[in-house]
Amino acid sequence: MTQLYAVRMDVALPPDMDPAARDDLLAREKAYSQRWQRSGHWPHIWRCVGQYANLSVFAVDSNEQLHQILWGLPLFPYMSITVTPLAAHPSDIAQDPAQDGTAHDPAQDGTTAADASSD
Amino acid sequence: MTQLYAVRMDVALPPDMDPAARDDLLAREKAYSQRWQRSGHWPHIWRCVGQYANLSVFAVDSNEQLHQILWGLPLFPYMSITVTPLAAHPSDIAQDPAQDGTAHDPAQDGTTAADASSD
Amino acid sequence: MTQLYAVRMDVALPPDMDPAARDDLLAREKAYSQRWQRSGHWPHIWRCVGQYANLSVFAVDSNEQLHQILWGLPLFPYMSITVTPLAAHPSDIAQDPAQDGTAHDPAQDGTTAADASSD
Amino acid sequence: MTQLYAVRMDVALPPDMDPAARDDLLAREKAYSQRWQRSGHWPHIWRCVGQYANLSVFAVDSNEQLHQILWGLPLFPYMSITVTPLAAHPSDIAQDPAQDGTAHDPAQDGTTAADASSD
Amino acid sequence: MTQLYAVRMDVALPPDMDPAARDDLLAREKAYSQRWQRSGHWPHIWRCVGQYANLSVFAVDSNEQLHQILWGLPLFPYMSITVTPLAAHPSDIAQDPAQDGTAHDPAQDGTTAADASSD
Amino acid sequence: MTQLYAVRMDVALPPDMDPAARDDLLAREKAYSQRWQRSGHWPHIWRCVGQYANLSVFAVDSNEQLHQILWGLPLFPYMSITVTPLAAHPSDIAQDPAQDGTAHDPAQDGTTAADASSD
Amino acid sequence: MTQLYAVRMDVALPPDMDPAARDDLLAREKAYSQRWQRSGHWPHIWRCVGQYANLSVFAVDSNEQLHQILWGLPLFPYMSITVTPLAAHPSDIAQDPAQDGTAHDPAQDGTTAADASSD
Amino acid sequence: MTQLYAVRMDVALPPDMDPAARDDLLAREKAYSQRWQRSGHWPHIWRCVGQYANLSVFAVDSNEQLHQILWGLPLFPYMSITVTPLAAHPSDIAQDPAQDGTAHDPAQDGTTAADASSD
Amino acid sequence: MTQLYAVRMDVALPPDMDPAARDDLLAREKAYSQRWQRSGHWPHIWRCVGQYANLSVFAVDSNEQLHQILWGLPLFPYMSITVTPLAAHPSDIAQDPAQDGTAHDPAQDGTTAADASSD
Amino acid sequence: MTQLYAVRMDVALPPDMDPAARDDLLAREKAYSQRWQRSGHWPHIWRCVGQYANLSVFAVDSNEQLHQILWGLPLFPYMSITVTPLAAHPSDIAQDPAQDGTAHDPAQDGTTAADASSD
Repeated sequence: MTQLYAVRMDVALPPDMDPAARDDLLAREKAYSQRWQRSGHWPHIWRCVGQYANLSVFAVDSNEQLHQILWGLPLFPYMSITVTPLAAHPSDIAQDPAQDGTAHDPAQDGTTAADASSD
Repeated sequence: MTQLYAVRMDVALPPDMDPAARDDLLAREKAYSQRWQRSGHWPHIWRCVGQYANLSVFAVDSNEQLHQILWGLPLFPYMSITVTPLAAHPSDIAQDPAQDGTAHDPAQDGTTAADASSD
Repeated sequence: MTQLYAVRMDVALPPDMDPAARDDLLAREKAYSQRWQRSGHWPHIWRCVGQYANLSVFAVDSNEQLHQILWGLPLFPYMSITVTPLAAHPSDIAQDPAQDGTAHDPAQDGTTAADASSD
Repeated sequence: MTQLYAVRMDVALPPDMDPAARDDLLAREKAYSQRWQRSGHWPHIWRCVGQYANLSVFAVDSNEQLHQILWGLPLFPYMSITVTPLAAHPSDIAQDPAQDGTAHDPAQDGTTAADASSD
Repeated sequence: MTQLYAVRMDVALPPDMDPAARDDLLAREKAYSQRWQRSGHWPHIWRCVGQYANLSVFAVDSNEQLHQILWGLPLFPYMSITVTPLAAHPSDIAQDPAQDGTAHDPAQDGTTAADASSD
Repeated sequence: MTQLYAVRMDVALPPDMDPAARDDLLAREKAYSQRWQRSGHWPHIWRCVGQYANLSVFAVDSNEQLHQILWGLPLFPYMSITVTPLAAHPSDIAQDPAQDGTAHDPAQDGTTAADASSD
Repeated sequence: MTQLYAVRMDVALPPDMDPAARDDLLAREKAYSQRWQRSGHWPHIWRCVGQYANLSVFAVDSNEQLHQILWGLPLFPYMSITVTPLAAHPSDIAQDPAQDGTAHDPAQDGTTAADASSD
Repeated sequence: MTQLYAVRMDVALPPDMDPAARDDLLAREKAYSQRWQRSGHWPHIWRCVGQYANLSVFAVDSNEQLHQILWGLPLFPYMSITVTPLAAHPSDIAQDPAQDGTAHDPAQDGTTAADASSD
Repeated sequence: MTQLYAVRMDVALPPDMDPAARDDLLAREKAYSQRWQRSGHWPHIWRCVGQYANLSVFAVDSNEQLHQILWGLPLFPYMSITVTPLAAHPSDIAQDPAQDGTAHDPAQDGTTAADASSD
Repeated sequence: MTQLYAVRMDVALPPDMDPAARDDLLAREKAYSQRWQRSGHWPHIWRCVGQYANLSVFAVDSNEQLHQILWGLPLFPYMSITVTPLAAHPSDIAQDPAQDGTAHDPAQDGTTAADASSD
């Protein structure tokens, strides 16, 4: 089952990094990122305006897979990363029709059902 | 020109709110949100796991339009909101081919061109 | 596939809450928590010393399931919750033997393999 | 359509930077900034008292253009930047007469109209 | 001598405020703000997108006058305010020609003069 | 008497560390960690997804023993560590039956007994 | 084995609390605190200057006992509490002679011994 | 008109700074500070106990002058500075008699007058 | 021996406080403050611009006396207070001549003497 | 008159410090600390578990003396220090009998006396 995560990555490269090493690192980062984008597991990547940072969305099989992807980033040692697990929102127009069949766990009582249709 | 913004909304309703008023408020919030989703200006809305919060992406014409949409949310008085303006990321596989034509401003020199293909 | 999450829940009940309503709420919380513990999805719950708070570990199928469980907590409207997705640690003695077979994704190169055995 | 953003830039140069490299960097920063000021896209720049920092206002066509300007700053690698998107304020005496014609979006109902005239 | 200050005001009105009292308060706030805008002491007021907040610039004679204006705001008891004193920026194209005559204080040595033309 | 502590360790190695020294350091860290895991004093270690960090649980005799273990970590000089002392949770299904015999201290009055059965 | 913890308690009573209820609460708090002080488990309590707060040191058998004491405080629902587990300091003149016999755990190697005599 | 500002300066010198360069820097800082103290513009300077920091009060003509003084500090590149603009306090026994004549601005109504005599 | 402390007090009165009770409270606060000012123990009180807050300096005999003064403030239950103990600054022109006689404690070695004349 | 202060010191030594210089520094720190402990001015020093940090209590004559002791610490340039002035707590069983004679200041009225016996 595919799951979504919002991931923000802030990059801090040392200003005095060797230019050739920097170029090589950034080329590897770009190629790595684009391979994962083409695989379908990294559907969104946006630049945060005015920041050396991106906000991305990942669609992966598990926490494990997400960690393997992030850990393997060539820029990982220079990044500060925050991970926000995402779920479907009950007001999402794409989710609305399927909403009645999502929950068969032991704790599901009326409270959960009522909440599920709220904001 | 359409622009993207990431918006996180954290909701804090008073626990002792009148249930009928609460239901009415949430019904209006849902209808309002879905009208904007159908208009194409609110393309993504996700629930943040374990939070009464959502992470959304808006595609709007201007800062003004984004503010009007957020200000009009029925839950606005109960929300804490953060707004992150987004731009295309140079490593985005959807942006890559079109990248050579984006910049005709006076300050654009070689540094910008080199940076645009990095990270 | 089962996934792990660390979840910290801080509770803030209004000091002047009606005692009977408070007792009822806490009884429902306890029953709800214990149903999920018996299901195997909530394997650990500890009290944080000196806090009205707990640190828990959840073992669930997905982000969605974790959100449904947390959203359904009777104390949810009174809680501040933080969620940390977990993965296997390469130094975990329970994980070590199985480590060579975890990764078949397109981005997996030598760097990832080397990192997987570190720290 | 022109949009406004407040941008604060905090500068942290290494104290032991080579003086000639520092002078060259600052000269390029000043020239870059003044080119953008003369273009009309950087209408305000103020020094924050007692800080190596400025508060600026930008008037640009889009999030993209703002990012290109900031990313191209010669001091960008030494800066910490915060961006606040701005909109017209309903109490602004310059905005007041034009206020009745700003909103034709699907979600605009009475609530928005009432709010638009408040603080 | 006129001095500039950036002031951010975040408003938090109780959601259950009496509507008539709220309307009256906001009408008084708007009239008060516009009187000061017309006096020339409050040259800029912008809405922060997605926030019940404004960013303003004040041009006043003294710290005292700024405090009297802010303290007198009808919304003052509901606001959280931050004040940033501003000075001319040496790269400001409006300041550049006049820059050579600003400093006659005892501590002004070569260092200050060199710094004044930087960043 | 064995006591539990949650410990989060965030690692920050200098990116330009000598690779052989780094490999040696990480090998010693792994061996040290696994010795303590096999002793039964370090029952859980998980990777925090997307972070060079782990969340661990320690079961030790005392504050002293926990400090000796953490202080001795080969990576200690590169770590930022937070320690949360844990106690049994009254809703824990493993603790429930034994709960009536835990408290014989002078301050134990009815309030404590009532609280002990709540969340 | 007795263990030490530093505990800071910040109190926030509602200013409009009924005076008789407040007096009763504070009398019970004082009696509770003094019973534990006389038991030897609460050896230090100091007022933090200018704060409705105290800094205390507890000497208890376990995390469990500390939690039971704190949870039972009549003011607990009005307090924000931080707990810092303490260990002997290698430079403490009371600890110095006994220092050579503290460690018999599997991970204790030369590094630990060297560290134990530092700072 | 003279205005007051509270300024806190925290100093962070690199521990491995060349001792002669450090001595020279500190000698220049002291001379610079004492010149401004003798001019009457820097009436108070106190050491913050246990910190490499001072809390100072400046009495200057304008924001501009304060910035020129701070920017010129030899230690400026090593300092983190916070600036708090000050005004007369209505309860100050030195201000009380003169209080009735401070305000002739357009927005001054009864509310301001009433507030001016409160804490 | 008289000692100095910087104290910042931020006031948060409930906006819906009874006006007569508020006036009485503020009158008592003002009288209390002025009694201590006249005693010489509260030599400075300034309003922080744009804040319901003051920055004060106290000259008292001890921590105890400072606490008694602050605890007795009629507004104490509505205040958030920070206390910074102050010492003489070695660059203070009023302290300089007397500096050679301040220290006769066992730990005073050459390092302290050298430091005492710096920054 | 002796006064108490709680002081927390967090140490951050560069990991690549020369081992002999580090040993010498730590030996001087230990000797310095123990001299002050033997003088009676540094009655408590505890290690914070899992941290390169200590929590100490100082009993000194004045703010000045405390600053001289801390400033003279050989590790001072590598420490981040927080200072909390302490006073006697009215619930302290050692303070209770002497409590009726502590206050002869002009502002001491019934309110202070009542507060002095509360938590």
